[in-house]
Amino acid sequence: MARIVQKFGGTSVATIERIKAAALKVKRERERGHQLTVAVSAMSGATDKLVELTRQASPLHDARESDVVIASGEQVTVGLMALCLQELGIPSRSFCGWQVPIRTNAAHGQARIEELVPDELERMLARGEVPVVAGFQGVTADGRITTLGRGGSDTTAVALAAALKAERCDIYTDVDGVYTSDPRIVTRARKLTRITFEEMLEMASLGAKVLQTRSVELAMNHRVRVQVLSSFAEQIGSDYPGTLLVDEDEIVEKHVVSGVTYSRDEAKITLVKVSDRPGVAAAIFGPLANANVNVDMIVQNVSEDGRATDLTFTVSRSDLDRAVALLNPLVKELGINRIRHDSNVVKVSVIGVGMRSHAGVAQRMFKALGDKGINIEVISTSEIKISILIAEEFTELALRTLHTAYGLDAN
Amino acid sequence: MARIVQKFGGTSVATIERIKAAALKVKRERERGHQLTVAVSAMSGATDKLVELTRQASPLHDARESDVVIASGEQVTVGLMALCLQELGIPSRSFCGWQVPIRTNAAHGQARIEELVPDELERMLARGEVPVVAGFQGVTADGRITTLGRGGSDTTAVALAAALKAERCDIYTDVDGVYTSDPRIVTRARKLTRITFEEMLEMASLGAKVLQTRSVELAMNHRVRVQVLSSFAEQIGSDYPGTLLVDEDEIVEKHVVSGVTYSRDEAKITLVKVSDRPGVAAAIFGPLANANVNVDMIVQNVSEDGRATDLTFTVSRSDLDRAVALLNPLVKELGINRIRHDSNVVKVSVIGVGMRSHAGVAQRMFKALGDKGINIEVISTSEIKISILIAEEFTELALRTLHTAYGLDAN
Repeated sequence: MARIVQKFGGTSVATIERIKAAALKVKRERERGHQLTVAVSAMSGATDKLVELTRQASPLHDARESDVVIASGEQVTVGLMALCLQELGIPSRSFCGWQVPIRTNAAHGQARIEELVPDELERMLARGEVPVVAGFQGVTADGRITTLGRGGSDTTAVALAAALKAERCDIYTDVDGVYTSDPRIVTRARKLTRITFEEMLEMASLGAKVLQTRSVELAMNHRVRVQVLSSFAEQIGSDYPGTLLVDEDEIVEKHVVSGVTYSRDEAKITLVKVSDRPGVAAAIFGPLANANVNVDMIVQNVSEDGRATDLTFTVSRSDLDRAVALLNPLVKELGINRIRHDSNVVKVSVIGVGMRSHAGVAQRMFKALGDKGINIEVISTSEIKISILIAEEFTELALRTLHTAYGLDAN
Repeated sequence: MARIVQKFGGTSVATIERIKAAALKVKRERERGHQLTVAVSAMSGATDKLVELTRQASPLHDARESDVVIASGEQVTVGLMALCLQELGIPSRSFCGWQVPIRTNAAHGQARIEELVPDELERMLARGEVPVVAGFQGVTADGRITTLGRGGSDTTAVALAAALKAERCDIYTDVDGVYTSDPRIVTRARKLTRITFEEMLEMASLGAKVLQTRSVELAMNHRVRVQVLSSFAEQIGSDYPGTLLVDEDEIVEKHVVSGVTYSRDEAKITLVKVSDRPGVAAAIFGPLANANVNVDMIVQNVSEDGRATDLTFTVSRSDLDRAVALLNPLVKELGINRIRHDSNVVKVSVIGVGMRSHAGVAQRMFKALGDKGINIEVISTSEIKISILIAEEFTELALRTLHTAYGLDAN
């Protein structure tokens, strides 16, 4: 007997028929003798509709009140899921965030879970019952409803698994696992049966939209074994059809690189001939930070004469116009020659914990891309990933080239 | 300065535009210096959709879980209303039933309010803020969500007015008040500016669908002055465009009869030649009561020979088939000659507290109908009402005749 948390995302509970199909998966796991706790998202599309209503009511809405409206979506699905489980003869009851309770801080719209009290859930599990918990929502110390932000239901599921010391947290979604690259572009991409938390974290933050970053962080911190799998597949989680997030020492077959990802949400800004003196970086990035413009990759060319240098960095595309507007007043002040910008760029990254112990990983990337005539505009590295910025038109070619170069292609 | 509870029904909050219009009514009352508490229903149609989802999930659904699903409708509107009020510069926050809290018994789907704790609402009112409370819902002692049954939002509003000792409870709805009769049939029907609780109670239970019976009972018990008015009219409640429910001693212009109502949801059953011996009535009505078939009017003809009698009574139309099926096995047992039934009947009632002190009220009714050739099939009376059963084809004629006979016609 294992204790398992099953999470069903929005597409998995989009209609009554799908909720019934999900309930059947709960039933089948339960028939294996497992103790089950279920977490659900709102019906696909419901949250967007509710967000739109709050926007119509008040463009600059009070997040405390929009959270009340938006959290109603998961309240609908927990009730329906409990009913569908009961129809299958499984004793079940629903819990809204405040009923568990799942206590969060008061950062409405993107609240963080501070405490999840599992007592009532434990009592239900001991009786062989199945609690169904609303994802994405919690309650503040003074009884206000909060939401955890996009993808927050994953976080709820992982928090439940941590609090209940579950053996596994199965995230049922509309993809059947984590791939070595985007299968729509790289046809020879393979599904990973295992991936480390660290790699998944990099993938999540680099644009692979399978799991929300915060849920992966939480899983890593609490060592929750998370499995990503498709709710549309025949198999249930205990038959392991998905991708399992594990500790590094659980990875048997080690690759130097586990995945190649990309993000199109990038724009490049170059400040030409910035005077090379102390405090310049602060003068440039300070106003951007104050305006919540997130700066990602930064490179500063070596200054030839020791007096001026070219500074290049990336921001997200939606922030480009704002960033340029913030920088324009600095042109004179900092003796900048001019500002160049380009949004026809893409960030491609290779990720793998194997990099820690292998040399020449970056060199292989540069050579493979160079052989195809792809120019690398910016490079940024961390312990387990290398990211480069290239012209957007080379996206598909670069992904396939790197996928092959690192030996990831399926046979 | 007065303390007022304003309740907006489903059609009054059906769209963002209507919620904004309702919020404007709150603003205008507030500008008069009043302290306001708002109660809202779910957006028109939302509750029906949610009920349908629960039915699809589980035909014989667990009412505890369907309440969770259905209560989400009001959660949406309280948040939206609070946002719309904030947009108008009015400090406001929303309350779900559990946040007030509004404590109810555990009769899910038709729970009764046991306690409404007004402390937080009082604090908001003292600060000049406007609390917005979800109608129709509450919470049990052990933290489960309940709903109060159809029309429950009126009950919530009256309970709020009672707990807050409000001067008035304005029920904004899609009609502009209580009429002396159905204006679609009786063109000379007049809007009543005042009506006693007792009369309203009879009207509500006799088919005038303006207010839910339980909310009128609650208002009567706590002497809450309730005003029914249209949310589509220009005026706000303090300008008194609606119908006010008051104590009898507040009625200045006293009529013997205040209103003429009708109900088509009637069916007549006659048991021909029932043996006239003790215990027969129990043998007949026992099985009906056990099957939750509500019996309304009952008449037993005088037995000519002292051995057999005709017994006639009414049930609601939807119960007719079931009632007949329950009675059939008794035919032999009780020596009943045969069972006759007829659903082409209508119940017409005249209501007025003036009946208590006036003689000849019934006589006037019988004469007026007799003059028009309308046969009265069954009669039933209470202290302040006389109900008769007639053939359905005479409905309109009877209503207009009685409306004129009791001097209710508008000039």
